Amino acid sequence: MEQKSTNIILFSGDYDKAMAAYIIANGAAAYDHKVTIFHTFWGLNALRKDEKVLTKKGFLEKMFGKMMPRGADQMGLSKMHFAGMGPKMIKNVIKKHNAMELPQLIEMAKEQEIELVACQMTMDLLGLKEEEIMDGVQYAGVAAYLAEAENGNVNLFI
Amino acid sequence: MEQKSTNIILFSGDYDKAMAAYIIANGAAAYDHKVTIFHTFWGLNALRKDEKVLTKKGFLEKMFGKMMPRGADQMGLSKMHFAGMGPKMIKNVIKKHNAMELPQLIEMAKEQEIELVACQMTMDLLGLKEEEIMDGVQYAGVAAYLAEAENGNVNLFI
Amino acid sequence: MEQKSTNIILFSGDYDKAMAAYIIANGAAAYDHKVTIFHTFWGLNALRKDEKVLTKKGFLEKMFGKMMPRGADQMGLSKMHFAGMGPKMIKNVIKKHNAMELPQLIEMAKEQEIELVACQMTMDLLGLKEEEIMDGVQYAGVAAYLAEAENGNVNLFI
Repeated sequence: MEQKSTNIILFSGDYDKAMAAYIIANGAAAYDHKVTIFHTFWGLNALRKDEKVLTKKGFLEKMFGKMMPRGADQMGLSKMHFAGMGPKMIKNVIKKHNAMELPQLIEMAKEQEIELVACQMTMDLLGLKEEEIMDGVQYAGVAAYLAEAENGNVNLFI
Repeated sequence: MEQKSTNIILFSGDYDKAMAAYIIANGAAAYDHKVTIFHTFWGLNALRKDEKVLTKKGFLEKMFGKMMPRGADQMGLSKMHFAGMGPKMIKNVIKKHNAMELPQLIEMAKEQEIELVACQMTMDLLGLKEEEIMDGVQYAGVAAYLAEAENGNVNLFI
Repeated sequence: MEQKSTNIILFSGDYDKAMAAYIIANGAAAYDHKVTIFHTFWGLNALRKDEKVLTKKGFLEKMFGKMMPRGADQMGLSKMHFAGMGPKMIKNVIKKHNAMELPQLIEMAKEQEIELVACQMTMDLLGLKEEEIMDGVQYAGVAAYLAEAENGNVNLFI
């Protein structure tokens, strides 16, 4: 029997949507799917290192770099963000229920050998450099996505 | 021939996105698909009873419970919400065109035996209790979703 | 070998999400997929002509028509819109990187014979008339979508 596959495009930069993406991905990996998460546009922020990285950038790229959250832990909510109170509430209930926060879900994904891919084209558009992105991430484009997804079982755009 | 299947994850708590989800689901059921809608995160609000239900909750859960809309009819729009004017406009044009409002689309889904599933983990996270959710809903997790979706024909994340 | 197919529902009226939809669609067409983009709700705005078209409409339909962007070039961003500064920044970096803006991506989709479909039901709901929509667009409903998607390889809701 052929191995099943799950291919998620993570477009969103929202903490809650990224959580949903990584929960599904980790679940699918536990069920022996080959799993890939393609991070594009604001979803790339989940892969950013949380420290400031010195890079040579043009003005627009610097602006985007400053305005976008550095890493999963800094991302906002899609609903009820309330100037940052929402994410704190969510993180509190996650702890209370012994569930995993987003950075832990990403760690787990790496341990389960889920392929984390960053979209090269939107990296360029938003002015993100490879040295700003966490280790263990691959760089590819829409062709690589389609090659996986056209034979995929569960394809989602999040 | 095997029965085709449609599996929708309803993550969004927006009235218009929930409408889209239920219209596709009802259409697929009419075409003899086995249809399941997995409600997670803010999508759970579509399944809430519209009356206030007394439950024992911690502080954070009470906060979430108060801030989230009680049932489909209270949900906002993803675009042009305009402090509630948008949903009223949408409901007015729906009536004018003899189309179905969201609560009716949910009723129709039940009549067509579409499986309405609430994600147990996000119920816990948001502090929602089963007695706040409408009847006829099942409770399950990501494993149940994947078991359906890995053989599904139309899998969508909304 | 049967031709593979990609079917995208474009629900969103955001410039960046529509870009993602059209980039995936154009990629899939280049890989010989049969590609269809079903525009529904705010996604219909990507298909609007950019000039004002005189039509006979009721009050609510006129309101929606005025408040919604006329065509791809007028659409806002899902994140960091900043009162229109975000879209300008994105368009600037697109030019700088010699990438394609949304109207060009739509032109390319037409040249690649991607089927652009407008959802008839939401056209009616939002009071959009066919004379406001660009040429070469087909009009259909959820049944037509399902007929394609149930045999599709890559089905996405954007």
